[in-house]
Amino acid sequence: MRFVKGHGTGNDFVILDDPSVELTADLVARLCDRRFGIGGDGVLRVLPSTGPAASWFMDYWNSDGSLSEMCGNGIRVFARYLESTGRVEGDSVAIDTRDGVKTAHFDGDQIRIDMGPARHLGHSAATLGGADYTGRAISMGNPHLVCSVTDVAKLDLSAPFDYDRALFPHGVNLEFCQPDVALGEPSAYRRMRVIERGSGETLSCGTGACAVGAAALAEAGLHTGTVKVDVPGGRLTITIDESTCWLTGPAVLTFTGEITL
Amino acid sequence: MRFVKGHGTGNDFVILDDPSVELTADLVARLCDRRFGIGGDGVLRVLPSTGPAASWFMDYWNSDGSLSEMCGNGIRVFARYLESTGRVEGDSVAIDTRDGVKTAHFDGDQIRIDMGPARHLGHSAATLGGADYTGRAISMGNPHLVCSVTDVAKLDLSAPFDYDRALFPHGVNLEFCQPDVALGEPSAYRRMRVIERGSGETLSCGTGACAVGAAALAEAGLHTGTVKVDVPGGRLTITIDESTCWLTGPAVLTFTGEITL
Repeated sequence: MRFVKGHGTGNDFVILDDPSVELTADLVARLCDRRFGIGGDGVLRVLPSTGPAASWFMDYWNSDGSLSEMCGNGIRVFARYLESTGRVEGDSVAIDTRDGVKTAHFDGDQIRIDMGPARHLGHSAATLGGADYTGRAISMGNPHLVCSVTDVAKLDLSAPFDYDRALFPHGVNLEFCQPDVALGEPSAYRRMRVIERGSGETLSCGTGACAVGAAALAEAGLHTGTVKVDVPGGRLTITIDESTCWLTGPAVLTFTGEITL
Repeated sequence: MRFVKGHGTGNDFVILDDPSVELTADLVARLCDRRFGIGGDGVLRVLPSTGPAASWFMDYWNSDGSLSEMCGNGIRVFARYLESTGRVEGDSVAIDTRDGVKTAHFDGDQIRIDMGPARHLGHSAATLGGADYTGRAISMGNPHLVCSVTDVAKLDLSAPFDYDRALFPHGVNLEFCQPDVALGEPSAYRRMRVIERGSGETLSCGTGACAVGAAALAEAGLHTGTVKVDVPGGRLTITIDESTCWLTGPAVLTFTGEITL
C-alpha cells in the first residue's frame, strides 16, 4: 500500500490514494500507530466525489478509527496532496467532505479554507488545576471555550480541568490564549494552547484557532477583521468577514512510503 | 533520501543505508520528529565496518541527535534490515558497534544478541510518587535498578521518582516487575515497565529486560536460566549462561519511504 505523509501546523495525516483499499477502524488505528505503524493523527483517503460540486471527497478517519466530518488542518493537507498530484486547476479546488463541499484557496505555502461562521454563545467558566478561568463560548460546528490568560507558556494543560456541563453536554475544546500588543493592535495577535476534546493538549486545532480569532475580535468590539494565532505547531491566520470565518495556514507533504499489511 | 522504518518490541528506528548522507544532530532530530519528520526513537545508519571482524557498522543516533554505543532493540532491527537486503549468510551476522562487535543470531521471527554479562551491584532503594521500593542494582554496561511489585499495571510511572544518587551518579534506568507463577516456576516469567533514563516510560528497554531477567534468577538463587519478560511493546526472552546474557526478541521492518530534505 503506497501512502503520503503530511502535516498542517503539526497535525499529521497518512494520505491514501487508492479507492480499492478497504479501510476499517482496526486498519486505520494500525496505520496511525506511531511505533508499530506509520504514525498520524488521522487518515485522509482520496475518493471520487459522488456530488456535482466537487471532483474529490475527503474520507477522513481519526487515529482511533472513528470517522470525522471535517478537520481544518487535515483539509489543507488534503488540498496540498491534490495539488501535488496535478489535480488542481487554477488557484482553488472544491473538496467534498462529510460536512459538505469546502473550497481550498492556494496562496504560496498558505492554503485558505472557508470554515463557516463562528457562533457566539456568551460567557462561561472553566477550572484548570484548581484555578478559575472565564471565557467566551463559541461554536464552530464543534464547541469551544476561549479563555484569556497572561502567559500560556506557564499553564499545565495536563492538570485536571472542568467546565459547564449544562452548556457543553458533549464536552468542549478548551483554548487558552494571550494577546501581544507589541505585535499590533490588541485584536491582531494571539498565542494559544488547546486541550482538544478526547485528545488532551495538541500542537494545533484549526477550529480552535478560529474560535480564538472570533473571541479576540469580539473582545475589541469588532465584528470583522484578521487575527494571527500562534499554536505550538506554527502560525494560523483567521479572517472573519460578514458571512464566514476563513482559516489560512501552511500544509506540507513530508514523505512518501510503501507499507505491506 | 530513501529510508526504512522498523521496530523491536515497540522501540522504533529510521534506517538509512546511504553512507554519502551527512548526518548531523539537527538532521537526526528532524528525521525522528513524529509529526514534522518520519518519527522514531533513533536513527540506525548502515556504514561499512573499518575492522576485520564485521562487514557492517551500526551508526546509532538517539532521537535528540546524541550518539549511543549500543541498543539491544536497535541492533535486532539493524540485523533484520541486513537480512532483508541479502547481506546475511547463514543464520548469524557480526555487527560492529561503538561498544564493539556483536553477533546477531536469526531464529525465525526472533533475533538473539549477546548483551554481555549482567553485573550485580547489591540492593538499593527508590521512591516513586511518595511510595518506597527496594530493588537490585544491576549493570548491563548502563545502570539499572529492578524493583519487584505485585501489580505493575497500577503504577503511575509519570509520578516523581528518586534513587540513591551516590550509587547512581549518572542516573539510573528504573524497572518495576512482577512475577506470574501461573506461567511456570517463579523465576520463569516477569511482566515489566520501565522509566528510561532521560526518556520517561518507554514501551521497551532491551538492557532493562536483561536486568530484570538477571534479578529474577538471582531472587530464585539461580546463576543461569531463561526468563520471559513482557514489556508493554511485546515479549523479550533473557537467557543467562556462565559467561553472558542473551537478549532474544522480534524485529520488524514496518515500511519503506523517501523524504526530501
